[in-house]
Amino acid sequence: MEQTATLLVCCPDRKGLVAALAQLLYGHGANILDADQHTDPVAGQFFQRIKFDLSDLRTDRTSLETAISEVAARFSMNWRIADGHHHSRTALFVSKYDHCLYDLLLRQRAGELSTEIPIIISNHADLEPVAKQFGIPFHHLPISKATKRAQENKALELLEAENVDLVVLARYMQILTDDFLKSYGGQVINIHHSFLPAFMGSKPYRQAFERGVKLIGATAHYATADLDEGPIIEQDVVRCSHRDSVQDLVRKGRDLEKMVLARAVRWHLDDRILVYDNKTVVFT
Amino acid sequence: MEQTATLLVCCPDRKGLVAALAQLLYGHGANILDADQHTDPVAGQFFQRIKFDLSDLRTDRTSLETAISEVAARFSMNWRIADGHHHSRTALFVSKYDHCLYDLLLRQRAGELSTEIPIIISNHADLEPVAKQFGIPFHHLPISKATKRAQENKALELLEAENVDLVVLARYMQILTDDFLKSYGGQVINIHHSFLPAFMGSKPYRQAFERGVKLIGATAHYATADLDEGPIIEQDVVRCSHRDSVQDLVRKGRDLEKMVLARAVRWHLDDRILVYDNKTVVFT
Amino acid sequence: MEQTATLLVCCPDRKGLVAALAQLLYGHGANILDADQHTDPVAGQFFQRIKFDLSDLRTDRTSLETAISEVAARFSMNWRIADGHHHSRTALFVSKYDHCLYDLLLRQRAGELSTEIPIIISNHADLEPVAKQFGIPFHHLPISKATKRAQENKALELLEAENVDLVVLARYMQILTDDFLKSYGGQVINIHHSFLPAFMGSKPYRQAFERGVKLIGATAHYATADLDEGPIIEQDVVRCSHRDSVQDLVRKGRDLEKMVLARAVRWHLDDRILVYDNKTVVFT
Amino acid sequence: MEQTATLLVCCPDRKGLVAALAQLLYGHGANILDADQHTDPVAGQFFQRIKFDLSDLRTDRTSLETAISEVAARFSMNWRIADGHHHSRTALFVSKYDHCLYDLLLRQRAGELSTEIPIIISNHADLEPVAKQFGIPFHHLPISKATKRAQENKALELLEAENVDLVVLARYMQILTDDFLKSYGGQVINIHHSFLPAFMGSKPYRQAFERGVKLIGATAHYATADLDEGPIIEQDVVRCSHRDSVQDLVRKGRDLEKMVLARAVRWHLDDRILVYDNKTVVFT
Repeated sequence: MEQTATLLVCCPDRKGLVAALAQLLYGHGANILDADQHTDPVAGQFFQRIKFDLSDLRTDRTSLETAISEVAARFSMNWRIADGHHHSRTALFVSKYDHCLYDLLLRQRAGELSTEIPIIISNHADLEPVAKQFGIPFHHLPISKATKRAQENKALELLEAENVDLVVLARYMQILTDDFLKSYGGQVINIHHSFLPAFMGSKPYRQAFERGVKLIGATAHYATADLDEGPIIEQDVVRCSHRDSVQDLVRKGRDLEKMVLARAVRWHLDDRILVYDNKTVVFT
Repeated sequence: MEQTATLLVCCPDRKGLVAALAQLLYGHGANILDADQHTDPVAGQFFQRIKFDLSDLRTDRTSLETAISEVAARFSMNWRIADGHHHSRTALFVSKYDHCLYDLLLRQRAGELSTEIPIIISNHADLEPVAKQFGIPFHHLPISKATKRAQENKALELLEAENVDLVVLARYMQILTDDFLKSYGGQVINIHHSFLPAFMGSKPYRQAFERGVKLIGATAHYATADLDEGPIIEQDVVRCSHRDSVQDLVRKGRDLEKMVLARAVRWHLDDRILVYDNKTVVFT
Repeated sequence: MEQTATLLVCCPDRKGLVAALAQLLYGHGANILDADQHTDPVAGQFFQRIKFDLSDLRTDRTSLETAISEVAARFSMNWRIADGHHHSRTALFVSKYDHCLYDLLLRQRAGELSTEIPIIISNHADLEPVAKQFGIPFHHLPISKATKRAQENKALELLEAENVDLVVLARYMQILTDDFLKSYGGQVINIHHSFLPAFMGSKPYRQAFERGVKLIGATAHYATADLDEGPIIEQDVVRCSHRDSVQDLVRKGRDLEKMVLARAVRWHLDDRILVYDNKTVVFT
Repeated sequence: MEQTATLLVCCPDRKGLVAALAQLLYGHGANILDADQHTDPVAGQFFQRIKFDLSDLRTDRTSLETAISEVAARFSMNWRIADGHHHSRTALFVSKYDHCLYDLLLRQRAGELSTEIPIIISNHADLEPVAKQFGIPFHHLPISKATKRAQENKALELLEAENVDLVVLARYMQILTDDFLKSYGGQVINIHHSFLPAFMGSKPYRQAFERGVKLIGATAHYATADLDEGPIIEQDVVRCSHRDSVQDLVRKGRDLEKMVLARAVRWHLDDRILVYDNKTVVFT
């Protein structure tokens, strides 16, 4: 694991892109383990994910990155490289529901999520015992209209202090302000309990019940300033019927939320996601 | 088949409903083959579907219906009874897409849909050969803004002449006017090519593509004056990804549309659907 | 909840069954909340589940049961009645995997499973801390060939002492002997990590990998003396591909196992399952 | 379309494979449109599919293929190249069921399957009218024990005369002999109406009914001498319950069979499938 790296690339489509990168990596002794690519003919964009083994690198890491940045400049590439040995650090934001929290903590412990979870932040104290069970520091930052800005600033300080790369809103029942998102800079994944764009906003299970749909859904997306409008990472649905009360939808939805959020977080941590045009390319 | 009947009932919930109907049917020698019920505690409504065998009826059919209407009056029931030997008559409305048309015609021929299909109506001539293959009269009623009213009147005449119980809009790319729906009186099932209420209106696959969803859907519903707002009968979804162009979504959607529409039509024809509060109870 | 009861009935099919039971319950002042039935025309068997409200019972509980047993005798019914106020007691048997254990404990705590869990039994000590977190007595009963009989006897004593109604094998990696099943008498639900009858026996994920299937499954069933041959309660599948190693199948399978087992246990606890002919009727 | 080609490669895994092919194609002016690869670490095998544009080829086609064969020799590659302008030719074998036949014919006409269908062969005359509707020559080759060899020889002659690349058994209720498979040489796709390896052999819906499964499946696979044991291309399932008779399973299964077979045929025709070790790598 420590000897691998993943390169993600996005650029205007043109000839020779695949060859240029493959040749460059081969020339440095990096062995391609997995490569996936996509061309969007409408947007004229090219996307690629290359995972490679560095154990027989002929040059050093600096030379490799320099070479990549030269090729990238030539092809106007946006790129980033992630090291297999770099453990990303994830913060979980929660309110009172424990199902997504338990799910992520158990998956992380089972080795499904390649991240550390150094911090849990909540506007309620309810889930502190869960954090304690897993030995993770829990910060209770209550929110009122008056204290929202202060609470967000405190959260930002904690994220910075802990070098957090990713924030996961695991049924965090607060809307992050545009200011927070801009100041944080890193990525934020949210789980919305409907099949977006249906039932945006609050109480989606009630909305679904009232419309009489035959499937309910859940959507994991990157949080943006436009609530429930960010790039969708993953969605799934489960069947329901006239027999399901709102409470039944809530219960069925819990399983959906857990699964959909976990998949999105996993793909993000494995550097499988590229965002463009308010959409995602997910190399699964 | 000819010796069975199906009773559908909807009324305010109260004690003794199940017993009253079961006792009544038993007393007349009708044998209950299948019974399903539902109580909506929020709306305080009771729903029941009872399928029974009439072959050993001790009284005659008129006595039975009189008895039912007496019980119904006592409990303020809405009810209807459908005979197994009554062949319903369905009209298909189509435009240029043939996939739902072929699908319904083949299912009807395979015995999956207990209805006759005496008439196909279209605003285009393209699918006349398909109708001919299956030996079904095809009526080409072209539409322009100026002729819409006249075309609908002509369609209404045909439906009446053919004693049509059910109209299925099998990707009919026209909106039926409120006048038409009122004048026709019978039920109309439409297939919308999205997971309603997401992507209402036109070009839902394009809308889905632009939003970057990870699943596309289809929805069969009863047509009402409010476009895409009628009671939902059935929905389903299929997975898509960044690799899918709008054309791919259209292709994947064709299979969905066929399956979802066919299920809805089948359930309707088997008298499995009750509508209330702009929702459906579907006894499957 | 405490004022409801559920009656499950199975008998040879004949006329008047539904009316007899509905009339009986109505006559005693029991209000039918939910009723579902099924007739198997091949086996000539009738099945019914009736959930009713006892809060306005005109007679007492003994009179009601006497009346039911008289009707039951007349129609050769197998029947059982379960009280809403009776809390069933479930024992969990586990080995080293914690995913099904955590899943069931969290669902029970969330109110999804109407049972108490007074005891966890394992042939390994690994999961004792989990039991402790949830405050449930944990019994470590190690097994070797020589001690198997003694261990099973010890387990039987514990089940009796705790008045256990249901045993759930939550990835318990031991085969219960026929003697144990006979002595225990109660019901035992197992989760097998394949789509039975495919891949019976050990290492089903490896078997699935080697056969190159495109879906993997999980099956919850009642345990019988014939391993993996008991009545199936629930099954589900998840997509896999050539990219999935055996370890990936194990990971994907964990989610499946949890979901499928939880649904089966829930339905059992809600008295929704009737067994006959080595199959199940599940009134969902 | 005519200016593209698809290269499929399988070889022992080693460094520089991706770079070698990418460089080769780039050097000849071929532009990579899509590339997908897979490494099986257990088998130590590397698989790649590269689709490229030939419209700006700097050399000619012969030079390109010579260059590929040189690289292939160096890396011990199995490879094949398919031209976008080459229209493959598919023969359909059917018996009496028409659902898969109609489905494939309609998909081909809708442009979903990039093949011509010059011939339909059947051991029964029933589906001749369908072939006629689509203007495709139909050959009725009845089979008895005595005539099986002669019928297969006649079929082989027809396949050769029509330059058939692919045979699709669209619910062909006969087993092809090992001799036929060897003599034909081309690939044969079969649809089996169960979730293999469950319910191999005859009457899988009856077997499924008797076992009481909660899902039924269908499996598309390449036909081999070992019946129902060939490499699996695609599988899917649909939910069933105690309410479903064998006839209901047959009806539900028809939709499954159509979908699963169509996907497999489409992937094969798009050169997305590599076979090794009695499994498939499907680059979707």
